[in-house]
Amino acid sequence: MRLLLAHPNVDLVAATSRQLAGKTLADVFPRLAHHQSVAALKFSNSDPNQIARQAGIIFLALPHGLAAEFAKPLLSAGARVIDLSADFRIKDANVYEDFYEHDHPAPDLLGQSVYGLPEIYRDQIRGAQLVACPGCYPTSILIPLRPLIRRKAIDRKTIVVTSMSGVTGAGRKVEADYLFSECNESVRPYGVPKHRHLSEIEQELSLLAGEKIVIQFTPHLVPINRGIITTICADIAGNVVKMDPALIFNGAYGEEPFVRLLGDTRLPDTKNVVGTNFIDVAWKIDKRTHRLVVMSAIDNIVKGASGQAVQCMNLMLGLPETAGLN
Amino acid sequence: MRLLLAHPNVDLVAATSRQLAGKTLADVFPRLAHHQSVAALKFSNSDPNQIARQAGIIFLALPHGLAAEFAKPLLSAGARVIDLSADFRIKDANVYEDFYEHDHPAPDLLGQSVYGLPEIYRDQIRGAQLVACPGCYPTSILIPLRPLIRRKAIDRKTIVVTSMSGVTGAGRKVEADYLFSECNESVRPYGVPKHRHLSEIEQELSLLAGEKIVIQFTPHLVPINRGIITTICADIAGNVVKMDPALIFNGAYGEEPFVRLLGDTRLPDTKNVVGTNFIDVAWKIDKRTHRLVVMSAIDNIVKGASGQAVQCMNLMLGLPETAGLN
Amino acid sequence: MRLLLAHPNVDLVAATSRQLAGKTLADVFPRLAHHQSVAALKFSNSDPNQIARQAGIIFLALPHGLAAEFAKPLLSAGARVIDLSADFRIKDANVYEDFYEHDHPAPDLLGQSVYGLPEIYRDQIRGAQLVACPGCYPTSILIPLRPLIRRKAIDRKTIVVTSMSGVTGAGRKVEADYLFSECNESVRPYGVPKHRHLSEIEQELSLLAGEKIVIQFTPHLVPINRGIITTICADIAGNVVKMDPALIFNGAYGEEPFVRLLGDTRLPDTKNVVGTNFIDVAWKIDKRTHRLVVMSAIDNIVKGASGQAVQCMNLMLGLPETAGLN
Amino acid sequence: MRLLLAHPNVDLVAATSRQLAGKTLADVFPRLAHHQSVAALKFSNSDPNQIARQAGIIFLALPHGLAAEFAKPLLSAGARVIDLSADFRIKDANVYEDFYEHDHPAPDLLGQSVYGLPEIYRDQIRGAQLVACPGCYPTSILIPLRPLIRRKAIDRKTIVVTSMSGVTGAGRKVEADYLFSECNESVRPYGVPKHRHLSEIEQELSLLAGEKIVIQFTPHLVPINRGIITTICADIAGNVVKMDPALIFNGAYGEEPFVRLLGDTRLPDTKNVVGTNFIDVAWKIDKRTHRLVVMSAIDNIVKGASGQAVQCMNLMLGLPETAGLN
Repeated sequence: MRLLLAHPNVDLVAATSRQLAGKTLADVFPRLAHHQSVAALKFSNSDPNQIARQAGIIFLALPHGLAAEFAKPLLSAGARVIDLSADFRIKDANVYEDFYEHDHPAPDLLGQSVYGLPEIYRDQIRGAQLVACPGCYPTSILIPLRPLIRRKAIDRKTIVVTSMSGVTGAGRKVEADYLFSECNESVRPYGVPKHRHLSEIEQELSLLAGEKIVIQFTPHLVPINRGIITTICADIAGNVVKMDPALIFNGAYGEEPFVRLLGDTRLPDTKNVVGTNFIDVAWKIDKRTHRLVVMSAIDNIVKGASGQAVQCMNLMLGLPETAGLN
Repeated sequence: MRLLLAHPNVDLVAATSRQLAGKTLADVFPRLAHHQSVAALKFSNSDPNQIARQAGIIFLALPHGLAAEFAKPLLSAGARVIDLSADFRIKDANVYEDFYEHDHPAPDLLGQSVYGLPEIYRDQIRGAQLVACPGCYPTSILIPLRPLIRRKAIDRKTIVVTSMSGVTGAGRKVEADYLFSECNESVRPYGVPKHRHLSEIEQELSLLAGEKIVIQFTPHLVPINRGIITTICADIAGNVVKMDPALIFNGAYGEEPFVRLLGDTRLPDTKNVVGTNFIDVAWKIDKRTHRLVVMSAIDNIVKGASGQAVQCMNLMLGLPETAGLN
Repeated sequence: MRLLLAHPNVDLVAATSRQLAGKTLADVFPRLAHHQSVAALKFSNSDPNQIARQAGIIFLALPHGLAAEFAKPLLSAGARVIDLSADFRIKDANVYEDFYEHDHPAPDLLGQSVYGLPEIYRDQIRGAQLVACPGCYPTSILIPLRPLIRRKAIDRKTIVVTSMSGVTGAGRKVEADYLFSECNESVRPYGVPKHRHLSEIEQELSLLAGEKIVIQFTPHLVPINRGIITTICADIAGNVVKMDPALIFNGAYGEEPFVRLLGDTRLPDTKNVVGTNFIDVAWKIDKRTHRLVVMSAIDNIVKGASGQAVQCMNLMLGLPETAGLN
Repeated sequence: MRLLLAHPNVDLVAATSRQLAGKTLADVFPRLAHHQSVAALKFSNSDPNQIARQAGIIFLALPHGLAAEFAKPLLSAGARVIDLSADFRIKDANVYEDFYEHDHPAPDLLGQSVYGLPEIYRDQIRGAQLVACPGCYPTSILIPLRPLIRRKAIDRKTIVVTSMSGVTGAGRKVEADYLFSECNESVRPYGVPKHRHLSEIEQELSLLAGEKIVIQFTPHLVPINRGIITTICADIAGNVVKMDPALIFNGAYGEEPFVRLLGDTRLPDTKNVVGTNFIDVAWKIDKRTHRLVVMSAIDNIVKGASGQAVQCMNLMLGLPETAGLN
């Protein structure tokens, strides 16, 4: 909402919510109350056909399972949809069912969705009707790993990923686990060893590699509002004569507007990316272990969610990719 | 100070500090101001011989390099010393110089110090004149890894350790990096890839294994006062027919007073150990990757420092090991 | 629970909860899991008569309204009850109904309850069958104000109180307002201008003064787990020739085991009292405004709740008042 | 720096610092490293004349005392200066010396400076050569109090102000008091009873009232990065027949671009203003005490410092007042 209101090429024409229907956006978001449109616009309980007539692009911010149910009529009505749930990220309905523990609600749509990571699928996103925005962990993992996988710089069987996420990663779930007193002064692993995001991470890595990749992934909850640090270790591939991560990363991302390469002298910090759509990437060669350590930082609800969704929208509408994101 | 004041078998007879000499403990620690001894006792600038006459056990909480200089005259005067610095943890002065970047100030004393991890060296600690208390990361790593190394349950070449530490891990260093505004809402890796604590971790693991072990270790700073979460991944050893971590950990630590085994259904959380001398240890077998994930939580300034020092003192004085630590 | 388990004179014989019935205390409180009794004891759904037979003292930690319903049969069965809710703090059922917006569930019991602030009602607490433990704000306000009111040192019509409370002040209510992301990096007033605790604060102040006292009170929520800072301003009374707060406070509290007087040179800080049953009290005379500023700090869930309850229990059982609280 | 880089009408031509001279802005502010100018621009140690030739507007962010020394040659060279220190806020050099405890370094300049609070001095700021930006507390106090003073709605002798500030209020002072472990999980009053900001608050209130006003002010430090909550209580003036704060505040601020009036149904929260130049103002009439309670929230380093400085610059340059601040 904040990003769309500040976007120079966007008119926010509707916001829907069963629960909040009738309230103005200003009631619900006091932080944004000074925007004229926010003071006037009310949450509605509109049906999909109505919404599809009003808006050229529709963002879905719904739980998995539910998102697909809303997407179906919107797509039928000709709308272009950017979905922030997991429903259209997984190409294989069986994998979806394995990780999300329910049948996929619209398996026929899986073929047409595009995975919304511009750094990989920029061209496909431009023409897509349905974009499946990546999860926050996958964004922080796939961008650093992609060029290493493509250049066969690391041993694919040795990838160990550890991530630390701020509490907004859980959304606004009103559960005891996310109360202030339970999260403050607390650090804890969770979702071990089979976090749902593994399904999309391994799908995308395997597509890049042309063979099945399975990784180790351990997420942790840390007491910050926003931000993810991801630390990746992998053996340098056996046949690499001279490992040159700077060459690999500059080759892949030198021109990317939202990838900042910190090199091997600086380290990432969530506070440098919070509120931005940047991903900061740093690396170190560990001569003692012959491994490469790559670290990234993103804001989990910007580059890890809504900012990336706006970046996709910009591509879909032929706007400058950075519009509304600076 | 807090632990010693509450200890049923301890009289605190002196506290020394050049900088604070003349101030009462109550001035410096308002939290403890109600203790009669704290209100009366002043920081002194006593010389080692004087201190050695006053006290049966002396704790050194000094920077590395400096600690050894204070220890030498104390030991010569017959005192028993528990050192919380790195100075006597490393058995090989060359390794010390490699990691700490200065000559070892008392290499002749390295042979007589005992590494103060009761779970490994209980018997040696009892009779020691000089105990070198482990660092906070090593405690959180060595206790979980020790039985796995001894039982050859994991492939020693695949050990990847990621840790997250609260800000007290840096002591009370008055540096910009540790200001509230720099640490709050920030998570960041640091000390990559060759943190100083690696020297003692690898020394102890190698001693256990009977062969050189090198591990991957990436520490992170997180915005909590106290606590460390350590997450360890390693390949299950190739010749293990049936991995049974519960059997291994119960065998090693079933009787340990300060090791709480959470098993494979619960996960550790720093808030469950803060203010205590416990280490919580949990594990998960990852069938997808054929790896074992082991996670631990400690309070970095209790089991990771002062609590462990008191545990060592209890052993040295023939007291119940848990005295003053419940 | 934590305080009772560590208390040298207490056996914890039962813990009741409809919702948690059947679970061990260790399941619910992993932090305490090492206590043998916690591992064995299960939450029960026992009826009051059964509980009254098992236990000499019963603590009620229930929402207002519900507490009185549980207290009635317990008291009838002869049990001694320490209630941590508001139900028995207010002597006048009409005032209760005005502030709590429902009828008082047991107005006949109001006459027999004793307000559980030992610094005021020590003797009455010793013999009480029913003790109504004060709220956290009232404790932090009444202790500093009491001697000033009694000595007529301040103008009773000019008392302005501002308090800042940690989030545990709201209990473990699972509501969106108390989620980490809503409280972290947030400070906010609430309950303005008629917070419920005013009813007991003004009742006790009026009893002390022998005339009706009405105060200004504005509480704020701050992002800490535990702790309350209360700042009180009032005009120095017109007929005071020489204001000497040290004389007044030392006279009132010089012998109190849990009141620490900081004087007019040091200021309170929640971190000095967290985890303790102390209240720290400091003051400043403002010559520019001819007002007295008094500041206090407590741990809202120790001196502001459970610690104070244990202090009352010690009095009721004839134990040393500080037993289990150091 | 962040605001100026994003401002549509500003070119940042120089940044000076003795300590950082030679480093690029990108080195020092990794968060801003993607800006081309930040990557290229180096901190310089330029002399005032040189700077005055380069820049039309110069911002001084220096300690009090030092700021005036830099301002003198800049003003002589014809530059327009926006000073964020206290040096030019106080009109009376004696008051300055009383509160800041050193002689004023440039008393002759006090007459020409304009107090940079656009809500009071908008017209004077437009033509000023020297603007003295208010402190963070004064902004949060003067905006709510101004219309009440002017309309004689409250009793000027009864004003009691309590504020809570985030830790950036102390700047980036590298002192033990502002270390993470000292501020986190801590709330504490400080600067009691004669905080330096009182000098400018009372000066401005007295100017508005046409008579000397003295207030009670107690600031507190709370563990957030940014934000101030100010809570003001005052007796409703005796001759007020019907108190109507909405009328008063709407009359004063209905057209102000950065004042958001929350009325008497909503309360302010720092998280709604952080990162913005807004001040949120709410109020409650307390019928029980016949007092008015007014509460405000600002971001102490935006509306309380740099944002307000940019707002002043916009006025000085004839730009839209909100340029670069949305």
